[in-house]
Amino acid sequence: MRVIVIEAHGPAFSAGHDLSEMVDRMIDDERVIFEACSELMATIHEVRPPVIAQVQGMALAAGCQLVATCDLAVAADTARFSTPGVKIGLFCSTPMVALTRAVGRKRAMHMLMTGDMIDARTAVDWGLINQAVPAAELASTVIELASRIADSSADTLAIGKRAFYDQIDRTEPDAYELMTQVMAANAMTGDAQEGMSAFLEKRPPTWTT
Amino acid sequence: MRVIVIEAHGPAFSAGHDLSEMVDRMIDDERVIFEACSELMATIHEVRPPVIAQVQGMALAAGCQLVATCDLAVAADTARFSTPGVKIGLFCSTPMVALTRAVGRKRAMHMLMTGDMIDARTAVDWGLINQAVPAAELASTVIELASRIADSSADTLAIGKRAFYDQIDRTEPDAYELMTQVMAANAMTGDAQEGMSAFLEKRPPTWTT
Amino acid sequence: MRVIVIEAHGPAFSAGHDLSEMVDRMIDDERVIFEACSELMATIHEVRPPVIAQVQGMALAAGCQLVATCDLAVAADTARFSTPGVKIGLFCSTPMVALTRAVGRKRAMHMLMTGDMIDARTAVDWGLINQAVPAAELASTVIELASRIADSSADTLAIGKRAFYDQIDRTEPDAYELMTQVMAANAMTGDAQEGMSAFLEKRPPTWTT
Repeated sequence: MRVIVIEAHGPAFSAGHDLSEMVDRMIDDERVIFEACSELMATIHEVRPPVIAQVQGMALAAGCQLVATCDLAVAADTARFSTPGVKIGLFCSTPMVALTRAVGRKRAMHMLMTGDMIDARTAVDWGLINQAVPAAELASTVIELASRIADSSADTLAIGKRAFYDQIDRTEPDAYELMTQVMAANAMTGDAQEGMSAFLEKRPPTWTT
Repeated sequence: MRVIVIEAHGPAFSAGHDLSEMVDRMIDDERVIFEACSELMATIHEVRPPVIAQVQGMALAAGCQLVATCDLAVAADTARFSTPGVKIGLFCSTPMVALTRAVGRKRAMHMLMTGDMIDARTAVDWGLINQAVPAAELASTVIELASRIADSSADTLAIGKRAFYDQIDRTEPDAYELMTQVMAANAMTGDAQEGMSAFLEKRPPTWTT
Repeated sequence: MRVIVIEAHGPAFSAGHDLSEMVDRMIDDERVIFEACSELMATIHEVRPPVIAQVQGMALAAGCQLVATCDLAVAADTARFSTPGVKIGLFCSTPMVALTRAVGRKRAMHMLMTGDMIDARTAVDWGLINQAVPAAELASTVIELASRIADSSADTLAIGKRAFYDQIDRTEPDAYELMTQVMAANAMTGDAQEGMSAFLEKRPPTWTT
């Protein structure tokens, strides 16, 4: 498996949690629900292949968090995004972790405090998603993107994805110290040696992974 | 009090510090001035209600910092923003803390190194403010925004605002660990239970806060 | 020296590393190459004067990193930017450090995972560069920008640049604590006292640095 695509069918990409699971429960039950959700988000960052969200409809609350968490996201231009928990008394605090890191402070605060929906064009403009396309072209756009990524060495993609999340929360000097080692080690791999040689010899590379 | 609006009258929203307070002083006098300013900025993040900047005119130096610091900001389309301290020998180092976290590195560096003004449309584009509207509509736009926010539970808004700033400076795994607990505890509150029940029963919620 | 401009001639601003230096080497040789590159990037942040990238052509891999690292960047509207290492098996992990901090997560991930080029207009839109101008106006635009910056006190620019990178990786409270001290000390310098006095007396300042 070289690339993972998360897609959905129907009017919503994901409307988030099932509220009926959260009414009249004990605190430990609530914890189990949110821990499972946070674990899913961490797993998306931890799995080897890049993960693309293919967003055909509404992405609400934890659904919006899922879009923000995926490595890449492409949406139908009819898709909508919001973190409306504030309107039902349950602030979208876990979605906020991914949302603030994707769209920045003022825009995240607006979505979180109002629950307002944003459209796909705005989501592109704010960096929440990479691209918005006509609904009829969504699946083919994602397949084309996934195929282009899958043309690269699987080891290289995995090294790069792990490195991305390993460096993102570090200070810049610490990030450079780590990435300098990562890149030197990457350069010694068979696929890098093959890729660089192929480039210098003006021929297509043959990956072993 | 459910929402705080900071507004001003006259040509400037805020032109920052009074320079006459900073000429021919001792270092301790200078410190007192900047400590008071930094404390005000921290307080805006610490108070329970969301704080909206209603920016009718120029926001310069610490005035620009104030806009960047508020949870939300709406400006007249005639408003202007700059950090011009560099031109008078006093680099806008404290405003920079809020500015870089709002607009990113290259744009903040440009404003800080040149002192150039940006207009309200650019401020929206860069995420410094949420919205720019004709001056005649500024007050009504802010009231409408504040009213929509105030329709939510005051406890939920306070939980969310505190959580926003508690998570923003953490690594993503640490942020999730904390927010998972915050959201589980939020789900147990009376207003969340009421809000979720009302949603499931398709009726409007009745908040206790 | 008050401002540094990094410019290049020919079709590329910088195409990054010379791959022939990285084929059939020992791990220590690879390390030396990437450590030298990371040290250059750190030096750009550490030198006293602001550094402007004048980007007339393609900026690829470490060349794109160089643009992202400079304090400011102006490009010809024909310039192009990419991190294409993934296509040759060598993920752009060190360029990623500067790139993610300039353009944010989703956009950086797209560039890194696909190696796609972005044009100068997109680079402005994403905050990778400050401005894109017709190629014929590039040099004059950079000179004009550098001259305007150089009109300020060299000490003030140096205080501000050092402060920028000293605060950027700190938590907001820590950043404020440090910047409050920096700004109070800055206010006591001769150039700040002169600049503030000149402003209050409505006359042009005379810098000593």
